[in-house]
Amino acid sequence: MEMEKLVSLCKRRGFIFQSSEVYGGLESTWDYGPLGVELKRNVKEAWWRSVVYERNDMEGLDAAILMHPSVWVASGHVDGFADLMVDCKGCKKRFRLDHLKEKKCPDCGGELTEPRKFNLMFKTQVGSLEDTASSIYLRPETAQGIFVNFENVLTTSRRKLPFGIAQTGKAFRNEVTTGNFTFRSREFEQMEIEYFVKPGTDEEWYKKWIQDRFDWYISLGIKKENLKLRPHAKDELAHYAKACTDIEYLFPMGWSELEGIANRTDFDLKQHAASSGKDLSYFDEATKERFVPYVIEPSGGVDRAVLAFLVDSYREEMVRNDKRVVLGLHKALAPIKVAVLPLLKNRPEIVEMALKIKQGFGKSFKAVYDDTASIGRLYRRQDETGTPFCVTVDVESLSDKKVTVRDRDTMQQDRVGVDKLKEYLDGKLKEGGF
Amino acid sequence: MEMEKLVSLCKRRGFIFQSSEVYGGLESTWDYGPLGVELKRNVKEAWWRSVVYERNDMEGLDAAILMHPSVWVASGHVDGFADLMVDCKGCKKRFRLDHLKEKKCPDCGGELTEPRKFNLMFKTQVGSLEDTASSIYLRPETAQGIFVNFENVLTTSRRKLPFGIAQTGKAFRNEVTTGNFTFRSREFEQMEIEYFVKPGTDEEWYKKWIQDRFDWYISLGIKKENLKLRPHAKDELAHYAKACTDIEYLFPMGWSELEGIANRTDFDLKQHAASSGKDLSYFDEATKERFVPYVIEPSGGVDRAVLAFLVDSYREEMVRNDKRVVLGLHKALAPIKVAVLPLLKNRPEIVEMALKIKQGFGKSFKAVYDDTASIGRLYRRQDETGTPFCVTVDVESLSDKKVTVRDRDTMQQDRVGVDKLKEYLDGKLKEGGF
Repeated sequence: MEMEKLVSLCKRRGFIFQSSEVYGGLESTWDYGPLGVELKRNVKEAWWRSVVYERNDMEGLDAAILMHPSVWVASGHVDGFADLMVDCKGCKKRFRLDHLKEKKCPDCGGELTEPRKFNLMFKTQVGSLEDTASSIYLRPETAQGIFVNFENVLTTSRRKLPFGIAQTGKAFRNEVTTGNFTFRSREFEQMEIEYFVKPGTDEEWYKKWIQDRFDWYISLGIKKENLKLRPHAKDELAHYAKACTDIEYLFPMGWSELEGIANRTDFDLKQHAASSGKDLSYFDEATKERFVPYVIEPSGGVDRAVLAFLVDSYREEMVRNDKRVVLGLHKALAPIKVAVLPLLKNRPEIVEMALKIKQGFGKSFKAVYDDTASIGRLYRRQDETGTPFCVTVDVESLSDKKVTVRDRDTMQQDRVGVDKLKEYLDGKLKEGGF
Repeated sequence: MEMEKLVSLCKRRGFIFQSSEVYGGLESTWDYGPLGVELKRNVKEAWWRSVVYERNDMEGLDAAILMHPSVWVASGHVDGFADLMVDCKGCKKRFRLDHLKEKKCPDCGGELTEPRKFNLMFKTQVGSLEDTASSIYLRPETAQGIFVNFENVLTTSRRKLPFGIAQTGKAFRNEVTTGNFTFRSREFEQMEIEYFVKPGTDEEWYKKWIQDRFDWYISLGIKKENLKLRPHAKDELAHYAKACTDIEYLFPMGWSELEGIANRTDFDLKQHAASSGKDLSYFDEATKERFVPYVIEPSGGVDRAVLAFLVDSYREEMVRNDKRVVLGLHKALAPIKVAVLPLLKNRPEIVEMALKIKQGFGKSFKAVYDDTASIGRLYRRQDETGTPFCVTVDVESLSDKKVTVRDRDTMQQDRVGVDKLKEYLDGKLKEGGF
């Protein structure tokens, strides 16, 4: 599908809006609307339950965005997390050095300045007055919050290797080149694991994690033909990595990174140990050895995952000569699980019954009541929203206490007793792993 | 209880660590450890389900932290969100003007400088190079993300007044005075609602929301005698507010704000309309009137709520001459729902059965397996963690396929068949509204 179509659907249905849109927007930052926030919550929740609850070898963490500035010196970000930029002395345009093929301006052929380093971290001042304040950074990755808490988590959780620490949270990069909707933005959310292993077992765990993470996307409905693994070549590896494989998705702009699984070795823990003077090694009770663990890092982008689930689930179908747009989202991800619709909104008893049914779902899942259009349009609206089930209350419902449950994908309709409805829907939703 | 005791428990058990602790910490920022992240998740989830899922009049939102700088001019933050500070010319110490009773330094009696404004917003630069970049701010409140999205949410959700928009998210304030553990920190999380109503109905909704929010804390186990309402006096109201009431909790340092419910009138929407040139009014189909809605804002702090739930649930009891520390957290908030413990860890069949039971809970809730101490210590550990149920596998379990389920609060033990265990626990957890 074209990205424009998706951007338009996201705006129209309330998935994603441009941030600060009434002020003309803030470049490449995005707000998640009423449906988007639910989809994003569901993606993060599915990830958390899969990597933290279902496993026996994972702890969670929620570290602050603001960290001690020494963290970013030790991690290499203060020195290394920079692009080299050049300006054209003629037309004054600015380019990334690594994007240029010639030593002359690609636009006007003018002479270029010497390259200058542009660090991608956002810097701010903390403290009481600007002249005495100290510079800190917005974290450019959540990973370092895990590394500096390694010892605290290890001690309080009494873990033995191998075990991991999982975290979701915002990170910020002052990217020079942004774009492709939410694919590359300056503020983004990560879902990241640092998995600590004994050196020597790292390659085996690296392979396992690649497979586990690939399977996770498949389990939530991504089509296999739209996913592929791309191992990095030696010359594109980050300075800390022994190996890295991207899980790529076939986005509208082409194959692009959805998640990266890296073997970060013992680089980060050793750097922080040297820089802080703290012992960040691990003592293996069984073998009486002391060593610094190796780390496998499966690092996914929440916004990219949301985008991939939207792209992948979008389909257009002809139903009786009428085009129907469906977001065939996995039930666990669908923003709204059930929509309750009155067939006739001018019949107070029908409206009352529908509202009561909606209310009966309570806080167990997101359900909505909608009476702002005819039933045909309401169905189409919920199809485009990805809602797996529509419950319709009609005149007959008043006497037989049954309602019609319509399935988003098959469009088949079941007549279900109101007293059995919650159980019926719970069962259907559980089939979907919700 | 004393705050020191709680800080120590939080560190020891893995609820809350000082941020960047290996580097000596970053003042007044905090990281949530393996248990803290679950408690915080549960608090936010309980709030979201209560205000978004259970109601019929609420939409969710997740706006970006970075916003267009004009937002903060219109909201009054660029001009008004500042403390006046003075320096002592003698001892060079710095004070907030409104904290001083005399015109001389309270420490050395020295002469003070003229007051200078200190804006509490964190500023940073966005764009490709420092000399051409533009200044933006980290949001000091999540509220404005809702106001600037009012029109987008209204249109896409087809809402009629009254309705609200709910959001959780991080906000940042470069506070001069921080402290009391996580109570006042520079990075914090809000759970905030802007509830839009027809002018004239605002006072009624203001009262309803005060009651609703008060009841929410009670419903999750906060003792009524530790909560009180404190209406603001006219002279302490913010410039935008017609009325404001704090829900205060009896923290270790005394009664302090947990949540504020403000009647913000039409101030914010009118400011953004004037500043952006966009029409942010509402057209009432029924009465054919056009007006700018009034706004009731229930604004709670996630970190403060977590702190209050910890303080309120902490108790020490004597059990057979032995002190027992219990976090009597509400079942919906408890970080771990079930701990599965083998009575003898040197019996592989028992360990295997315990692990299998833990694994059987899958992704439905947070369960743990622990065999790192004797059963007595394991119980105490789970009591201090707030885990409502311990499941113990013993020698008899191998033959009768039953396990012992121990209740955290009553310490009563039930013998339950393994095949009925999930159902038994689901039922018990549901009683707690999980």
